[in-house]
Amino acid sequence: MQERTEISTLGEFGLIDHLTKNNEIKNSSTIVSVGDDAAVIDHLGQTVVTTDMLVEGIHFDLMYTPLKHLGYKSVVVNLSDIYAMNATPTQITMSIAFSNRFSVEALDEFYDGVYAACEKYNVDLIGGDTTTSQKGFIISVTALGEVAADKYVTRSGAKKADLLCVSGDLGGAFLGLTLLEREKKVFLETKGLQPDLENQDYIIGRMLKPDARKDIIEFFAANKIIPTSMIDVSDGLSSEVLHICKQSDVGCVLYEQKIPVNDLARQYAYKLELDPTACALSGGEDYELVFTLPQSDYDKIVLNEQISVIGYITEKEEGANIITKGGNKYPITAQGWNAFTK
Amino acid sequence: MQERTEISTLGEFGLIDHLTKNNEIKNSSTIVSVGDDAAVIDHLGQTVVTTDMLVEGIHFDLMYTPLKHLGYKSVVVNLSDIYAMNATPTQITMSIAFSNRFSVEALDEFYDGVYAACEKYNVDLIGGDTTTSQKGFIISVTALGEVAADKYVTRSGAKKADLLCVSGDLGGAFLGLTLLEREKKVFLETKGLQPDLENQDYIIGRMLKPDARKDIIEFFAANKIIPTSMIDVSDGLSSEVLHICKQSDVGCVLYEQKIPVNDLARQYAYKLELDPTACALSGGEDYELVFTLPQSDYDKIVLNEQISVIGYITEKEEGANIITKGGNKYPITAQGWNAFTK
Repeated sequence: MQERTEISTLGEFGLIDHLTKNNEIKNSSTIVSVGDDAAVIDHLGQTVVTTDMLVEGIHFDLMYTPLKHLGYKSVVVNLSDIYAMNATPTQITMSIAFSNRFSVEALDEFYDGVYAACEKYNVDLIGGDTTTSQKGFIISVTALGEVAADKYVTRSGAKKADLLCVSGDLGGAFLGLTLLEREKKVFLETKGLQPDLENQDYIIGRMLKPDARKDIIEFFAANKIIPTSMIDVSDGLSSEVLHICKQSDVGCVLYEQKIPVNDLARQYAYKLELDPTACALSGGEDYELVFTLPQSDYDKIVLNEQISVIGYITEKEEGANIITKGGNKYPITAQGWNAFTK
Repeated sequence: MQERTEISTLGEFGLIDHLTKNNEIKNSSTIVSVGDDAAVIDHLGQTVVTTDMLVEGIHFDLMYTPLKHLGYKSVVVNLSDIYAMNATPTQITMSIAFSNRFSVEALDEFYDGVYAACEKYNVDLIGGDTTTSQKGFIISVTALGEVAADKYVTRSGAKKADLLCVSGDLGGAFLGLTLLEREKKVFLETKGLQPDLENQDYIIGRMLKPDARKDIIEFFAANKIIPTSMIDVSDGLSSEVLHICKQSDVGCVLYEQKIPVNDLARQYAYKLELDPTACALSGGEDYELVFTLPQSDYDKIVLNEQISVIGYITEKEEGANIITKGGNKYPITAQGWNAFTK
């Protein structure tokens, strides 16, 4: 039987000491870490800051999300936003609120995932808060990153004729979520029946343990590429492309045929009679990078299999459109995830 | 009748636009603000970072906390941590999760308080997150500040013979909370009876709308004072003094007679048959600054009525002790607020 240590046996300061006892500082920019009124950091260039709040029952379901994966993912989704600015993440703060159904061992599992992400992405945990909640588990992460002066990339610099590109592949996370939700439903309706995850490790991994595209930012640096605009895929390709178009005051053409979808994800989509393109456009949570480049950079990216050119930027007046495999042209509409209308 | 606009009519992006439409940037260090994957800031010196999570029913009670005050206080408690590092706050991020009982008008009230604090303390709101919760209102603030290289003050630099000082007065916030809790109980037990707040504006204000000691940090700068250690009073004087002693590896002597308590707070304490010293030692939430100075700085502070010398630092072996008005000596124990044992 698993051990269960009540959090009340440690108290707030004891819990913080326990959760941070193996915390290691990896960045020279971290001057003062956990344990004072505030942390002190010293970046050479500019500092990039992003924050996200994740709420149990809204953003994640602990019925099929292991706490370690949740800790990992809650860090990664914030790092993804730092990379989307063309910056290098260096520090995070982690705040959590939890009800008394959580034990010290449960929080240890969560922090195992947090530290695993910090290790993989070379990021320091420099602060946070731990408190009780009336209901459920709530996570708030702030990530800080560093970027050479004025080398940051916003959503607003796309220019007419720029190439519209995306890293990796899309739609997998949504299909993973669909599978997990289906198996949860079956499990609840037929008590005891074990979930059939059909060896769908790829799409389940995309949902439960996504990674941020550190490699793409490093590739940009190595090849002297600075995208004209960039955003990460949290709400779905449609929503992200529309953000770039709106904030850059441009239009775009997107080719359905060019949207990268993993073969395993595509097969699973067909099995569920879902359109893989729709999963990529509206699914979200893929944490890939969508970015625009001047055409003159085409030679630099053409051999990178992790980058797909999916369209190009047009005048604003032409709107944001997708050309289907059948050759039809439709306006792109955002049907991304919206916590307020669910 | 008050208007009620459902948040779902705006959607997530619409709500963010609504809440930030009058957001003004006041600091030249804010390069990119709300509206991208992350914000970009450019501090001349070092960057100081702190974060706090506030949960309805644990940290605040909306029965007697106006939302505008709550917005103000949730910013101020974080700025207080920045000042406690001897730094100047410059930016905040604000994340909130709320259930569907909150209307757009309610969030507007909350943000009125947030912006009032930003205005007063010359701080920019540069990011955040808004989402739904299953229950209650949850707030997560991260504050960033700037400090000249290596001029930050931690809890760990207090030296033997240093003066132990505190700003303002203590215990008021706890007494304000006691009054509000008492009146809430009366109100719930005798429906309709209006609360009797006895013109206790001072202590109620200390609880509901505390301020951070910007003036003290400015006084330090103007008088070339750099404390050897500093912490703000969130958990009560005992707890804060013990933090300084532990992290500085020293002991201290604290004189009960020297602990500053406001007259109005003292009178109310006597009325409730509470010991004003106990309220100051264990009450918390006063957001005053506790700090240590070399004795040679005494002349610089003696005329500042907002600073009290309450004791001095000793060798670690002597422990942390309080000398009572009656001349007795007792070890200081922390009975501060603890969310996990309530």
